[in-house]
Amino acid sequence: MPPAPAPAARRHDPERRDRIIDACLDVIAESGVAGTSHRKVAQAADVPLGSMTYHFSGMNDLLSEAFSRFARTTSNAFEERMAAAHDADTAKQAVADTVTQVVFSNQRDLVLTHELYTLAARDPAFRDITNAWMARSRRTLEQYFEPVTARILDALIEGLTIHRALDNEPQETAIVTAAIERITAGSPAAMR
Amino acid sequence: MPPAPAPAARRHDPERRDRIIDACLDVIAESGVAGTSHRKVAQAADVPLGSMTYHFSGMNDLLSEAFSRFARTTSNAFEERMAAAHDADTAKQAVADTVTQVVFSNQRDLVLTHELYTLAARDPAFRDITNAWMARSRRTLEQYFEPVTARILDALIEGLTIHRALDNEPQETAIVTAAIERITAGSPAAMR
Repeated sequence: MPPAPAPAARRHDPERRDRIIDACLDVIAESGVAGTSHRKVAQAADVPLGSMTYHFSGMNDLLSEAFSRFARTTSNAFEERMAAAHDADTAKQAVADTVTQVVFSNQRDLVLTHELYTLAARDPAFRDITNAWMARSRRTLEQYFEPVTARILDALIEGLTIHRALDNEPQETAIVTAAIERITAGSPAAMR
Repeated sequence: MPPAPAPAARRHDPERRDRIIDACLDVIAESGVAGTSHRKVAQAADVPLGSMTYHFSGMNDLLSEAFSRFARTTSNAFEERMAAAHDADTAKQAVADTVTQVVFSNQRDLVLTHELYTLAARDPAFRDITNAWMARSRRTLEQYFEPVTARILDALIEGLTIHRALDNEPQETAIVTAAIERITAGSPAAMR
């Protein structure tokens, strides 16, 4: 994994490209992929419009960089939370916490995730990003669970977090715990 | 549930409102929610622009009607498939078939679902639609499974179908079957 971007310098900057990518995510969160233009992103990043074509071959290149960074940031956070576990039981608790406390706890992440999924639904080229994101989540889970269990848990986390976010009734924590228990029951833990 | 819309009459039509709603879904599938305008929908429905303001109080009203119809159509199809089951085993098979054969088997449904989710992520008002959709799926599943199992299965179907659609590697059917078996294992079947 490449390192996370350093804090952006304001002008005359080697990190201009990085800052454009971050600004692109802000613009997507605000205006959606459909409302994202080179002009808006340049303004948000405080760079001349010409920088956009200098650093990116086009809008799809910029969107791809932006969503890859978003997926990577989200994966990093998941990996860190899971790294705090030390056996299958604490790993199960970390998965439950991910669903009930972490994922989509902010509106921005919720919107960006669904903007990415909509883009990937329309254009299979963006499925490289969703594929890489899923592959990394599964590898993270495989530190504690065997591969089939990891894959099912990954899908369950997806479904539970989406249903939690898009429902207007509260989701019971007991449902989340029961789901994780049933999926992991009788499944051998992987060696860490 | 209201009946499905009758085939649209072409002109001078009592079913103009219905046809506008269907056309709106076509426009969303093609151009996204962000690219949907009264003008485009009127053109697609072959009605004068004035019909739009006559039948709908605004774009949110039209989007709400359109996505409600989409959710209802999709729920109807799920209910029909599940109604063909006659016990927990055939119900489990019907759930597996839903994931592996039916949901998102066409690009249009995949795109419309993610357009709705993105809209609901941005604007909680649209979560009435996603809430009603989930509630109905769970009631359908509760014909065969007790409520906690139905709720977990509903989230699992969501996660598995999304991962199937947004991955560029094939999803093994064995994963789907294993997931359903684990979630339903030891859970008492509901009375039909």
